[in-house]
Amino acid sequence: MDNNHLKPREEVVEKIEYFIDQNQLRPHDKLPSERQLCEELGTSRTTLRGAIKRLIMDGIIYSKRGAGTFVAPQKLVRNLQDMESLAKSALAVNKVLSTEVLYTDIIECNKELSKRMKLTLGSKIYCLQRLRMIDGIPAMMELAYIDYSLFKGIEQYDFSQESLYRIMEEVYHVKIDHGSESLSVTYVSEQEAERLDVENGTPVFYITGHVFTEDEKTIEFYKSIVRADQIRFSSVLKH
Amino acid sequence: MDNNHLKPREEVVEKIEYFIDQNQLRPHDKLPSERQLCEELGTSRTTLRGAIKRLIMDGIIYSKRGAGTFVAPQKLVRNLQDMESLAKSALAVNKVLSTEVLYTDIIECNKELSKRMKLTLGSKIYCLQRLRMIDGIPAMMELAYIDYSLFKGIEQYDFSQESLYRIMEEVYHVKIDHGSESLSVTYVSEQEAERLDVENGTPVFYITGHVFTEDEKTIEFYKSIVRADQIRFSSVLKH
Repeated sequence: MDNNHLKPREEVVEKIEYFIDQNQLRPHDKLPSERQLCEELGTSRTTLRGAIKRLIMDGIIYSKRGAGTFVAPQKLVRNLQDMESLAKSALAVNKVLSTEVLYTDIIECNKELSKRMKLTLGSKIYCLQRLRMIDGIPAMMELAYIDYSLFKGIEQYDFSQESLYRIMEEVYHVKIDHGSESLSVTYVSEQEAERLDVENGTPVFYITGHVFTEDEKTIEFYKSIVRADQIRFSSVLKH
Repeated sequence: MDNNHLKPREEVVEKIEYFIDQNQLRPHDKLPSERQLCEELGTSRTTLRGAIKRLIMDGIIYSKRGAGTFVAPQKLVRNLQDMESLAKSALAVNKVLSTEVLYTDIIECNKELSKRMKLTLGSKIYCLQRLRMIDGIPAMMELAYIDYSLFKGIEQYDFSQESLYRIMEEVYHVKIDHGSESLSVTYVSEQEAERLDVENGTPVFYITGHVFTEDEKTIEFYKSIVRADQIRFSSVLKH
C-alpha cells in the first residue's frame, strides 16, 4: 500500500507538459537539454528518459537525432462517437487531410469475408486501401471491403479526391446509419512501416469496424492501422 | 493503384480467425504447427509469422515458448461510451474482476494537477493506484487523483474490495454525471512491466480521463495503462 516507486515517471510527464504550457512553448520549439530538465524538474536521468519516451509516443513532443527534443504540433483528435470526424477534426484544427489510394480491386467474397459481412460466398466486394495524411504526414492506412452489389461502378471514382461516404450517400443513395468499432494495439509490419514512415515494429492502433444501413445491412467492413503519435482517440462517457 | 503486396498478412489474419471458428477451437486449444498452417492456408512462413504476431497482440491467440500457439480466452471488451462497463463487461462474459491497491496517499494539489483538475493550489487530493486483474491476469493499472474536499475520510475504504464510484455516490452522495477519455499508445516502463506481467517495452493503451459532476466540477482525473492483449475497446458510431 505504501510503495511510492510507481509514480515518479507520471509526475515528470505532468511536469514536462506543465513546463511546455507555462513557458508558452509552441510547436517545434526546442525543450531544454536532458541535464537542464533534470535540474529544473528535480528528477533523475532514468525517470526523465522514461517520461520523454511516453510523451513522444503520446505525440506531445518529438525528438530529432542529434538535435534534441521539440514540442510536437497538436495531434489530431478523433471522436469515437462520430463516423465522419477525421476530416471534420482536421478542419477544426486547421490541418489538411489528404488521401493516397494504395490499392483497389473487385474480389469475390471468400469464406472469411462472407462471415464478417454476412454476404453470399462469391458475391462481389470492392476493396479500397487508402493512406491518409495529415498535413502531409502519413497517419493512417485503411483497408475497406465494400458490398459491391450496393455500389456498382464505384470503382470509377477517384477516392484520393472524393469522400467514400459522400459518394455512397449522394450518388448511390445508400444511407449510412451507424457503425461499430473495435480498438486494439499492434506492431506495424515492414510494408506498413514504409508506408507510414515509421520504424519497423512501431506500436500503432489497430482498428476494425463495420458500417451498417438502418436495417443492419453491412455496407463496409474495414481495418485500419493508425499512428498513435499522429492521431489520438477521444470518447465521451456517460453514466 | 495496383500493388497487391500490402494485403497478404491481413488475408492470413482473416484465414486464421476463420480456421479457429470453423474448427470450433476453444480457448487453450492448440493451433497446427507453422508448417502445417502454411500448407493449410497457402501462405509463406514470413507472412504467417506476421499474421500470428498481429493475432497475439490482438489477443486472439497466444504462444507458449516451445509449446506452440493456442487460442486465447475471449478478451474483455470495454465499451467506450459507458463509465461502469469494466466490471459489468467482466460479469457479462463470466470473468472475475479483482483489484489490488498498489498505492494510496493524500497529497497537496501541485501546479500540474491544479491545471488539470481546476483545483486550488495546495488543496487536498486523494491518490489511488490500483491494479485490475481479469481472472487473475493483470490487465490494467489505474492512477486516480480525486478531489479530497468532496470525499473526506475516503482513505478509510479498502478499494481492493469496494467500488470507488459506488462509495462516491452512495456514501458521499456525489453524483457522477459524465466523463471524457483520451486514448493513446505507449510502452510499459520496467516497473509497469513487472506489475502487469508483460515484457519490458510492451506496447499498451495509455488512457487519460476526467470524471465530472453534472455542473462540470472535476471529481477525478485518471491515467491508465491497459494491456491490449487483455482488454479491447469498442465504440458505437453514429452518423
